[in-house]
Amino acid sequence: MQIAYVIFNGITWLDFIGVYDPLTRLRSLKYIPDLSWDVCAFTKTAKDNFGLEIKPTRVQESLSGYDAIIIPGGFGIRQLQYNMDFVNWIRTAAPVKYKISVCTGSLILGAAGFLKDKKATTNFQEYDALRPYCKEVVSERVVEDGDIITCGAVSASIDLGLFLVNKWAGEEAVKMISQKMNYLGSNQSALT
Amino acid sequence: MQIAYVIFNGITWLDFIGVYDPLTRLRSLKYIPDLSWDVCAFTKTAKDNFGLEIKPTRVQESLSGYDAIIIPGGFGIRQLQYNMDFVNWIRTAAPVKYKISVCTGSLILGAAGFLKDKKATTNFQEYDALRPYCKEVVSERVVEDGDIITCGAVSASIDLGLFLVNKWAGEEAVKMISQKMNYLGSNQSALT
Repeated sequence: MQIAYVIFNGITWLDFIGVYDPLTRLRSLKYIPDLSWDVCAFTKTAKDNFGLEIKPTRVQESLSGYDAIIIPGGFGIRQLQYNMDFVNWIRTAAPVKYKISVCTGSLILGAAGFLKDKKATTNFQEYDALRPYCKEVVSERVVEDGDIITCGAVSASIDLGLFLVNKWAGEEAVKMISQKMNYLGSNQSALT
Repeated sequence: MQIAYVIFNGITWLDFIGVYDPLTRLRSLKYIPDLSWDVCAFTKTAKDNFGLEIKPTRVQESLSGYDAIIIPGGFGIRQLQYNMDFVNWIRTAAPVKYKISVCTGSLILGAAGFLKDKKATTNFQEYDALRPYCKEVVSERVVEDGDIITCGAVSASIDLGLFLVNKWAGEEAVKMISQKMNYLGSNQSALT
């Protein structure tokens, strides 16, 4: 299982780190010992709107070889969804099985054409922006339609992470990882 | 209000980003328009155990001039609490009013001598490690004793962030920021 996390300027770091944290524990707790990931970007660095910077490990490399791609959200998305160089780079993920987003990251999945005929969700303030890209906007914390998995805003990233833990490693792993994270769950029903 | 976030090798990034996210919104939503912060480290870069790196904005500079210092946790703490160069650097925060930690970050506050005669908490698996540093270990999500504020493991960082939002900007700000973060709260009682 190889994951590509996509980062970009104007990202909301909690969208990324909220799903990253529980998934890292799939490896450290040996539920999926060979789980690996890259932090991928189209630019050499990625900063949030306050200047906090994380360096990607891959820049402008094809996303085609991964099992899952995870796109966080943030204010940067508003412009990136219309940036055809960026969107065409995201399209290199076409063969990737699991296409996953947090918050407004779904607008990028949409702009790349991955949400056609799919149910999806996004930040609760951006439902209208998502609508043209998908079949139906669903107001739920985590939405799965086939291999497309989208989730709501910011803190829903943790629920998404635990949803993926459940999907890829089962309930016992969710129980252990939630406990280690001291996460009582804002919507455990999304996980079952 | 000027905050120093302390980062280090072996950090758990969610400990940092979970409190950072709600506090950034105090500025972007103009509750505290002049809120500012530095990301401070004793080393030139800081990576978690999986190699994910965030660059500090200040390295080995005195921490004395801030209004608040916030120390996240992570496996790196196990050794750092006995690293006297690091602990002496943390001690430059002695004049800082609010000394705040997430998860095992409290062991560093303890090693620096800031928890003497104070109630505090930490990761639920590290209560024994915290005991020698403080008056009493409390099993709660967020613990405030005077100007020392400590919180439990990983996801409790978000509760800590909202606790600080409440303390510094009031209930209306907590309501707005929780909503923007789509955070339903794992323990709202900690906030009131």
